[in-house]
Amino acid sequence: MANYAKASLPVIKRLPKYYRYLKALQASGITSISSRELASQMGTTASQVRQDFNCFGDVNGRQGIGYSVESLLHMLEGLLFGNGELLPAILIGTGRLGKAVSRFIATSTNGFRLIAAFDVSEDEVGKTVNGIQIRHINELDTFCRQYHPQVAVLCLPREGAMQLSGTLVELGIRGFWNFSHYDLSVPYPQVICENVHLGDSLMSLGYRLRNE
Amino acid sequence: MANYAKASLPVIKRLPKYYRYLKALQASGITSISSRELASQMGTTASQVRQDFNCFGDVNGRQGIGYSVESLLHMLEGLLFGNGELLPAILIGTGRLGKAVSRFIATSTNGFRLIAAFDVSEDEVGKTVNGIQIRHINELDTFCRQYHPQVAVLCLPREGAMQLSGTLVELGIRGFWNFSHYDLSVPYPQVICENVHLGDSLMSLGYRLRNE
Repeated sequence: MANYAKASLPVIKRLPKYYRYLKALQASGITSISSRELASQMGTTASQVRQDFNCFGDVNGRQGIGYSVESLLHMLEGLLFGNGELLPAILIGTGRLGKAVSRFIATSTNGFRLIAAFDVSEDEVGKTVNGIQIRHINELDTFCRQYHPQVAVLCLPREGAMQLSGTLVELGIRGFWNFSHYDLSVPYPQVICENVHLGDSLMSLGYRLRNE
Repeated sequence: MANYAKASLPVIKRLPKYYRYLKALQASGITSISSRELASQMGTTASQVRQDFNCFGDVNGRQGIGYSVESLLHMLEGLLFGNGELLPAILIGTGRLGKAVSRFIATSTNGFRLIAAFDVSEDEVGKTVNGIQIRHINELDTFCRQYHPQVAVLCLPREGAMQLSGTLVELGIRGFWNFSHYDLSVPYPQVICENVHLGDSLMSLGYRLRNE
């Protein structure tokens, strides 16, 4: 597995999609697939498929047979989930959106484990989300020093994210799944940040509908 | 406003981010900004900022002064929101995620208007989401023929999305905000589809945390 570090962000962002498609193929009993066929199902090109898989060096399609679905899945699982250890994550902000997205972390299928949830609202504290008790944000410091979460899911407004992200980085958070409108990778370039700006996504859909 | 159609998808996807940053600048009383300063705040480069704005032809920065924040906002509002008419949208699937994301459509700030919500569950039908009554999916056809929604927000599982998207396209839906794991732009290349694959986003965060 040669060139991990060389995979560019666009390639990395495509890995989960390959994973999803190959899982679906496996579930329907398909054991091998050509780059052309996989590309056509996924709406991309055979050459992109081959280039993407080449980044990870150790899977080769065979002329006339194609790639082994099992080998590709094995490779992708190694890349996406490592040795299977789940990354401990905390949710900050347990409003509607926080509750909805915490489901993606509460199940182990994406490689994460929800270990705590925090909010400022007294109405939320003490309730549960996906079986996890909601704590007051005041407990954040103590909790992180004891349990060492690595990932924070930010489902709070821009101002709250701005105030809190420095503290989270200091407390050892190295990855953010960021739903706030605060682009924290600008002040903290050392952290890994996956932004989901839903408003932006919707506005760019609007642009395309109005202008294309 | 020359080159709309020439703006590439990556440029289009950056427009909402410019809009957010410029709104924040305007709110703090700043009237002009250089490409360099804007780029540094946004974590990009001055040359990208200039290139992006050049795509839309009619805004030029002035040497030593920079861009007029107001002019840029005027341009971006025109691009993102057209003449201000809200795009009529329906929500399909009123589970936790559907309820959470419908907020982005129910407020007018993103350029959309939620006009109906549908679900298959009898537990959901008759309840409301953001003040809109939830209808049974059986009413979809009649509703669309009468009210002509243009956009569908898909918050349902892959199988449901697969079954329903052909019907939605036939009923005149031309834009999708797609949270399902069904890549409907493959079978329906004529529609405009903005995919939000939350599981994919989380998995690629996991990859970067495990491999970078």
